[in-house]
Formats: sequence, structure tokens, C-alpha cells
Amino acid sequence: MLEAIQWRDGALVLLDQRRLPQTEDYIECYDANAVADAIRNMVVRGAPAIGIAAAYGMALAAARGDDLAAASAVLAASRPTAVNLVWALERVGRALDTAAAAPARVALETAREIHAEDIAQNRHMGQLGAAYLGDRPLNVMTHCNTGALATGGYGTALGVIRAGHARGSIRRVFCTETRPWQQGARLTAWELAHDGIPASLCVDSAAAYVMRSHQPGWLIVGADRIAANGDVANKIGTYALACLAREHGLRTMVVAPSGTLDLSLASGADIPIEDRGPDELWRGMGEVPTGLQILNPSFDVTPAAWIDVLVTEKGALESPDAVAIAALMGAD
Amino acid sequence: MLEAIQWRDGALVLLDQRRLPQTEDYIECYDANAVADAIRNMVVRGAPAIGIAAAYGMALAAARGDDLAAASAVLAASRPTAVNLVWALERVGRALDTAAAAPARVALETAREIHAEDIAQNRHMGQLGAAYLGDRPLNVMTHCNTGALATGGYGTALGVIRAGHARGSIRRVFCTETRPWQQGARLTAWELAHDGIPASLCVDSAAAYVMRSHQPGWLIVGADRIAANGDVANKIGTYALACLAREHGLRTMVVAPSGTLDLSLASGADIPIEDRGPDELWRGMGEVPTGLQILNPSFDVTPAAWIDVLVTEKGALESPDAVAIAALMGAD
Repeated sequence: MLEAIQWRDGALVLLDQRRLPQTEDYIECYDANAVADAIRNMVVRGAPAIGIAAAYGMALAAARGDDLAAASAVLAASRPTAVNLVWALERVGRALDTAAAAPARVALETAREIHAEDIAQNRHMGQLGAAYLGDRPLNVMTHCNTGALATGGYGTALGVIRAGHARGSIRRVFCTETRPWQQGARLTAWELAHDGIPASLCVDSAAAYVMRSHQPGWLIVGADRIAANGDVANKIGTYALACLAREHGLRTMVVAPSGTLDLSLASGADIPIEDRGPDELWRGMGEVPTGLQILNPSFDVTPAAWIDVLVTEKGALESPDAVAIAALMGAD
Repeated sequence: MLEAIQWRDGALVLLDQRRLPQTEDYIECYDANAVADAIRNMVVRGAPAIGIAAAYGMALAAARGDDLAAASAVLAASRPTAVNLVWALERVGRALDTAAAAPARVALETAREIHAEDIAQNRHMGQLGAAYLGDRPLNVMTHCNTGALATGGYGTALGVIRAGHARGSIRRVFCTETRPWQQGARLTAWELAHDGIPASLCVDSAAAYVMRSHQPGWLIVGADRIAANGDVANKIGTYALACLAREHGLRTMVVAPSGTLDLSLASGADIPIEDRGPDELWRGMGEVPTGLQILNPSFDVTPAAWIDVLVTEKGALESPDAVAIAALMGAD
């Protein structure tokens, strides 16, 4: 399995996910600015992965003796929606605050901890989520990429799918292309084929057609930020799929480490949604015609009421709501 | 306005819609095989437009003295879902059967009639449909391209939008990109910008997000084939949008000339759905990974029960069903 994030000889080495699956290219980052650029420009993407990359970015800043507050600020601003980014930066910050000396070593150790924990959490969530799939093999649908490339390794939603396939609960995975970056085609379909998991790819707008024709039992997705009431911000299109899932009898599972939960936000209405501008949609078509507005929201918010199961490494919640989420998080 | 289909000096000249909006390129067809290739390869697309192109293809065959039954067969087989293609070929065939002589002249006259009638029907449907939009300007959503380029001129769903904008009923048009060919981006957004109609473009999977955030009052789409009970085959994604429209309080209008109605099919389950293979989805990404299935249905079927208004040139039907459609068609 390709490793998207590696620490090697004092540098952060990132697999350039924009060029997959055709080209396996790596970008070396030597300071926090370079890591922030890599996050902003989608070299590395996926909420857990960008949190891990940002933590290593702090390790680079500490090793160079750069201003750590400035480094943290530039990393935090690189993408607005995923809260794992802020969560990872705060964790490195706390470790640095409590350490008397050796900030470079402390920051790197913390980044490595976050990275290793993410993989362990993914494997645990994989087991928790797969237990819901039952013993008869069924079709499932997923969106975007939540696999080894979006995380420290293994995956969130794709981790559940991996674990579910291993225990015989999954017949076939239907994955959506996921415009405008095609993470579903370039990354998820490719990861599934690599693992020998039967997979079918379709354009995003064919998902409802596939729900009707192939009757998947579950929609399984990740999350970029989850509000205190259980509303889930995730890749644009998740809201539509969750709505269509209700109409077509699929249950919806959201799989995300607890670092994705942002209890400071009462509901999904408070989650900032990144608009990434026109270039991702209007490519190779000359100039944007005068007067044409291009909307490119990168995320949308799925209401908690549409989520059947929320899986975190702390446990799984059926029909998640504010009370259950507070109890889960307080139990730490 | 660009003309997608022109008869010039004994040749059929087709605007190559695959290269728009960057390049305005024309392909000249001198026989029916060339026209069939142009339809199959999406040089010309849109159900009414391919019907018109096929009729001119018969005129080419007649002018050359080619076997007319063979020409008709190759044209009919060029794409399976749109019934306008078969309808136009049958109309030329009937004209040739009843004409004693001069098949070349008769075929060309019939093709020109079909072309001119299509434009007149579009303008009439534009008025009929726009009357439903009301007098307070509202947002509307459309999918794929149903404009001047998809028809003889003016458009079906986009004709209603043009007429609605002219009478002050439309504030802004939200158009979906429409993967995998991007007709919404390349053609619809571009036609709307050209006409000065306020338009916003988004990826297909953002449509539900836009329904929620911008509250369009209507989803307005075309059709490639309509069964006797009112089920509508149209561009992949229409089924999803119609489903999402119900959840978000939009009404759904289908606009199509009566040549789109196929009373020989009881319901949408009988409509053949073209799968156009993997190449349109897996482009510039190297080889398709072993074991990955690519589903590329070009159309889906929206149940009649989800359609609030069906507009044809013969009249508009609210909540269309088999009885109302039979009455409408019998009233000819």
C-alpha cells in the first residue's frame, strides 16, 4: 500500500495525490509554509491526513527554530472546513507548551503519535462499523476517498469497507467519481481494485440510478467536521447521497475519528464551507463566459437525523444526537 | 446564435459540440454513415437535434442514390435511447413511400420541415411552459443541455427558460455540470451567458446543496424518450434531481416535443438505456485497474409521478399519466 505521508531524513514527504493513479510522485516539504501549500493545493487531502500533515509541519517549524505561532496560524488557515487540522495543531501546541525543552523532538514525537494513533483508530473503527453490516454479503456505496490516502493509513469509511469485505459482509462497492477532483475514481476505485475488493465506479449523478438498480444496503462516508448535534460536513455530494439513500432504503454510516467532532459548534449551520473558486470546474474550456457564476462548494452538511450510525474510535452511536455525542466525548 | 445543424451546398454541416466552447469547429457529412458516426460520437447530441440530423442523413442517402433502408437502419442504430431519432426516420420514410418520384427532393424537404417545425414547436413550448413559472421572478434549475444546440434552435427546457426570462419570471438559472460530457458547463452555461441570462454552474453533486441554499422553484429538464404512462428517460442524473426536488419543494417540469413520446412502451422500464462504456469516465488516468467495473449509463428514468408538468407542443399536462397522454396524442 502506498504511504501518502512519510517522515524521512528530517523532511515531510507527501505523495502528490493530484497525479494519481497515473503518476506516483512525491513532494518534499522542509517548512510549515510548504506543508500549508501542499494542503491548500490538494497534494494531500482527506481530513485525517491533513491533520497529520499539519502536525509534521509543526515539527518542521520547530526543527528550524521558526516562529511556532506563525507556523501554526499558516497551517490552520490552509483549509477551512476540516477540523482535524485545528485539532492536530492544538495537540502539538499543548505538547510544546508542557515540554520544558527540546521543542523539535517534542513536536516530531507528537506528530508521530497522531499518525500512529490515526491508523490504530481506523482499524478499530473498521471493526466497529463492519459489525453493523451483518453476515449476508451486500452492496455498499461510498463517496470521495476515505482510504489509506485520506488518513494515516487503512481509512475511515473505506476502513469499514475493508474490514467488512474481510469478514464477508460486502459483495460489491459502488463508488462515485466525486467531482471536481475525482477522488472516487482516481483514489477510491484504485484502492479498492488494488485490494481486490469488487468495485464499480459511476458518475456522481448516476448514484440514485445505482441505488435503484443495485440496491446497496449502506451508504458509508467519512466526515470533515461534525457539529455537537451530529450534523456532518463532508465532501460535496454527501448531503444529496444521504437524501437519496433515505428514499431508496439505504442506511447511512458516517465514520470519523473523534478529532472530527467539533463540540464548539451547536449545529452544521455553523460549519464554515470552503468554496474553492471556478478553476476546478472550468478547466480546458477557455475563459469563463462573462456573467457566469461558478459555485464550487467543497463540502455540504448532512443533518444528523439522516445518519443511522456514527462510528468513532470511542464507539458507535445509532441515530446520533447532541446528548449521545456529549456522553461519548465525555467518556474519554 | 450558433447553428448546430445546417444544410449547405448539398452537405450536412454539424457544429462539433465536443469542442465547444473553446473551439467552433464544423464537420461536413456527405452520406448517412458519416451522420450516424457524428451522432454516435456526440458531434451532435440532444434528442431533437439527433432526429433532425438523421432526417438530413436520409436526404444525403437519397441524393446519392444509396440504399434507403440500409441508410435508415444505420442511422436508427446510432444511439438507442432517444426516440426522436426513430420518429424522424419514420417520417422521412413515409414521405418517401408516398412520393411517386424525386426521392432526393422529398427527403430534403421533409428534413427541412422537421427542422423548421422543431424550432416553431420549441418557441410554442417556451410560451406554454413559461406560463407556469408565475409573475414573481424565481430561481430555476436545469440539467444537461436542452438549448439551441440540442434542438433545431431555441431549445426545449432551455426554451422555457428563455421565454421565462423574457417575461420576467426567472431570477437566476442554476445549471449542473452534467458529467461525463459536461454539456451543462460547456453548452448550457455558455448559452445562458451568451443570452445574458443570470446563471450559476455547479458540479452535479452540488445540486441538492444548491436546492437548499438557493431554493429554486422549478427543476426544468428535457427528455429523450417518454413512455405511454409518462415515465421520462433523460440524461443521467435527472432521476436523482427529480427525487431531490421533491424533498426540497421544487416542482419538476419536463419539456419535449410530442415526437419524444413513445406510446409503444407502457412504462419507463421498457426504455432501452444506453451504456457508453468506460472511456468517458476513465480519461487521462492510464489503464482501468484490473477488476474495476465502470458503469456509464447515459440516461435514467424518472417516474411520471414525480413530474408536475409535461410540456409538449400539443399542450401542457399537469401530473401527466397514461390517460392524459393518450388524450393529448389522440387530439392530433
